[in-house]
Amino acid sequence: MFESAEIGHAIDKDTYEARLPALREALLEAQYELKEQARFPVIVLINGVEGAGKGETVKLLNEWMDPRLIEVRTFDEKTDEELARPPAWRYWRQLPAKGRMGVFFGNWYSQMIQDRVHGDIKDGRLEQAINGAQRLERMLCDEGALIFKFWFHLSKQQMKARLKSLRDDPLHSWRISPLDWQQSRTYDRFVRFGERVVRRTSRDYAPWHVIEGVDANYRSLAVGQILLEGLQAALKAPTEPVRKAVANIGESIDKRSLIGSLDLSRHLEKDDYERQLIAEQARLAGLMRDKRMRRHALVAVFEGNDAAGKGGAIKRVAAALDPRQYHIVPIAAPTQDELAQPYLWRFWRQLPARGKFTVFDRSWYGRVLVERIEGFCSPADWMRAYGEINDFEEQLTDAGVVLVKFWLAIDEQTQLKRFKEREQIPFKRFKITEDDWRNREKWGAYRDAVGDMVDRTSSEVAPWTLVEANDKRWARVKVLRTINDALEAAFKKDKKH
Amino acid sequence: MFESAEIGHAIDKDTYEARLPALREALLEAQYELKEQARFPVIVLINGVEGAGKGETVKLLNEWMDPRLIEVRTFDEKTDEELARPPAWRYWRQLPAKGRMGVFFGNWYSQMIQDRVHGDIKDGRLEQAINGAQRLERMLCDEGALIFKFWFHLSKQQMKARLKSLRDDPLHSWRISPLDWQQSRTYDRFVRFGERVVRRTSRDYAPWHVIEGVDANYRSLAVGQILLEGLQAALKAPTEPVRKAVANIGESIDKRSLIGSLDLSRHLEKDDYERQLIAEQARLAGLMRDKRMRRHALVAVFEGNDAAGKGGAIKRVAAALDPRQYHIVPIAAPTQDELAQPYLWRFWRQLPARGKFTVFDRSWYGRVLVERIEGFCSPADWMRAYGEINDFEEQLTDAGVVLVKFWLAIDEQTQLKRFKEREQIPFKRFKITEDDWRNREKWGAYRDAVGDMVDRTSSEVAPWTLVEANDKRWARVKVLRTINDALEAAFKKDKKH
Repeated sequence: MFESAEIGHAIDKDTYEARLPALREALLEAQYELKEQARFPVIVLINGVEGAGKGETVKLLNEWMDPRLIEVRTFDEKTDEELARPPAWRYWRQLPAKGRMGVFFGNWYSQMIQDRVHGDIKDGRLEQAINGAQRLERMLCDEGALIFKFWFHLSKQQMKARLKSLRDDPLHSWRISPLDWQQSRTYDRFVRFGERVVRRTSRDYAPWHVIEGVDANYRSLAVGQILLEGLQAALKAPTEPVRKAVANIGESIDKRSLIGSLDLSRHLEKDDYERQLIAEQARLAGLMRDKRMRRHALVAVFEGNDAAGKGGAIKRVAAALDPRQYHIVPIAAPTQDELAQPYLWRFWRQLPARGKFTVFDRSWYGRVLVERIEGFCSPADWMRAYGEINDFEEQLTDAGVVLVKFWLAIDEQTQLKRFKEREQIPFKRFKITEDDWRNREKWGAYRDAVGDMVDRTSSEVAPWTLVEANDKRWARVKVLRTINDALEAAFKKDKKH
Repeated sequence: MFESAEIGHAIDKDTYEARLPALREALLEAQYELKEQARFPVIVLINGVEGAGKGETVKLLNEWMDPRLIEVRTFDEKTDEELARPPAWRYWRQLPAKGRMGVFFGNWYSQMIQDRVHGDIKDGRLEQAINGAQRLERMLCDEGALIFKFWFHLSKQQMKARLKSLRDDPLHSWRISPLDWQQSRTYDRFVRFGERVVRRTSRDYAPWHVIEGVDANYRSLAVGQILLEGLQAALKAPTEPVRKAVANIGESIDKRSLIGSLDLSRHLEKDDYERQLIAEQARLAGLMRDKRMRRHALVAVFEGNDAAGKGGAIKRVAAALDPRQYHIVPIAAPTQDELAQPYLWRFWRQLPARGKFTVFDRSWYGRVLVERIEGFCSPADWMRAYGEINDFEEQLTDAGVVLVKFWLAIDEQTQLKRFKEREQIPFKRFKITEDDWRNREKWGAYRDAVGDMVDRTSSEVAPWTLVEANDKRWARVKVLRTINDALEAAFKKDKKH
């Protein structure tokens, strides 16, 4: 969920100062238009880890916007009046009116995550709070509200470094509350529960935007840009501003992307490869025959650039196994029967029984990759798909399915080389079509879509594994090892219960 | 929730046979049109108490429709294949394709309610199952499906009588499974949890239709009619069939209505009235001063026909109390500030603190009464309001608010008499306007809207009280007594915890 916010996003001072004036002016203009139309309110939720710049960003927004039209609300300790009424009362009384913006700094999410982190509530109550939040936001959106949800993120290392630098700076040490230090210790729990809450409450009508908080220039521009684009889209929409306004997801501000941050030079020598491959294959064979496997099923999803070597990797996985144990499902354009059903249907019907293994060569992620990029479905359709896919995968993992998801990444040069090889080798020529060449023009669109996909569907229970695949050997071994590690982790978890 | 399904709906044989041929023909026609368009699938969920005619209705549907285009699915014991996969797999594999109808007899709801009734799961897990069902149905609807959910209801007495008559009839005694008899014993739990499930999962995109199951003619015609109207609307809609198709809620088939079933001749003699009124007023004063009241707040909602005596009843309640304890909120057309917020906002801001009492003279139910009938909001808006109101009231009662809701009912003649009196008494003349006379023409529309309202928002935690108000004395005493009983019940419940 937070993968894209740990890659060191940054914007240098010159770029920042060059871009700021236009952004501020456009934001102000949008704000006046919002007031003029007075058709809908804007609610901005600010959440995330301590030290990631939440406070600074709120301060900045206040400076940038017309303070008469923006209200910042903090929700700390409940007042007597608030304690005497239902919990949501404090939020309702602070809702911005149509035409105005309300920034909720500390809100229903901070409350439920803190309560869970400190053990005041258990999973069942957290679940209820999540559902309450979903119903509240759904209702607000149905009533016309435009909701932005920002999650400010720092990796654990980044947070520790930031807290330390603040402490050492006499001008800023007052900023660190005891809570901050406490959170440094509870970081893991905070991020784990935060991830769950973000995953479960990111819906097409009110998605989360995860912002890497290390670099102040980056995070400020990113927040400003997302607000601006969302506002402009909503102001232009004739009715129902909400659904379409949030179409803009992601969009890298500093041209740094999750995929771009991979080290594609990783490789294995032939000897190492052969040794490791055989070892991992033997390990997989053993794990699949392990009696603990009877309580689980295994699903492996393979996605990746064209010619990234999905087929070859799948072959190496299959080679370890008895053909009765696994089933490979290649996903192409849907059949007529499949088109007559919800898009997840064709995957549900292929799920393995306990003890079995299904490999999906391309998968349900087509919805947010090719279907998004080629326009085979509407933006509303692929936007709601993130939530639906998370629901789907949660059902799998709840039922004991071990789910591994691979994106095999290569760079454009490597792809070009492989395409040309394919054209020259007679038995590989069937693998290359006009479509493949055409897809190369959409390299950037795929990079963005993959970034969104990983950010919105990588979770504790079903993480994505990005595989550096310029070197096929490296890729194949990493795939096998990841599957084996996931199986072992699942077996180990069984024992605990 | 089930009020309207315990009033003895019935249709005589002649009427039934006269109406049946046209209904069957229209249903068949709609079914062929559905196949022809092949734009969306239809899913019919059959749930409810044993003996209420679920099986018979499914059988009938199969006779009425073209069996090649309708598939009845029963979900009893899980097969080995189903046990080896995630729970929802069995439903996914049986989904009807676009253009076809699937009748799910036994489904996700039967499962979760049975599990809860028999104590296999607790409230937390039931909550999760409810959310899972909501997400599944939301997704199916987003994918185009048209969903009908039927709840077949019998009152406890009706159920016992029906089981007995089946047993005594040698031709039918085979129909009674041990489960039926067991359910007779667990009726109360079944209806309590069923009510919660129906309330929580009745959403605008897939509302429940509650059918009284005693009379076979009535329930068959009711189900057929609802299916027909829903289908026809969806087939006519150019896109997104779902949302609009379910606009048709309720509509009495046999002209029997919940409101019509009230015995409006109820009355009190003057002596009795004065004695009982004083006693109940003293009781209320005592309860409001009780120290257990510190953990609660009291909210009373007054709705009713024009001139039904809301004002007079409220006055008698207030007379018992210190003015610092209560607050009366008259609800008229919303102000400009209120229009700039979600419609529930004006009520949230008036909620009483613990220990206090707020009387709403008209309320949030305006959304599903006057706003529905006058077209002040769209059908989609008032349809989603039932769910939003249930969410709202659940938050109140969760926070310890004791919520009583009154509909004061009079008949048309009584209203006419009171209108005329008002015109003649100088100090009452301000109470009668052109609007009041105009509203009389909408008597039928209000009767239907009130029936829907009570069916969809009366619940264990926040029941409606229908007050026979032709006699003002009877009404005032009933109102006071209901409030007192509710407070006492809440205090008693505290002790248990």
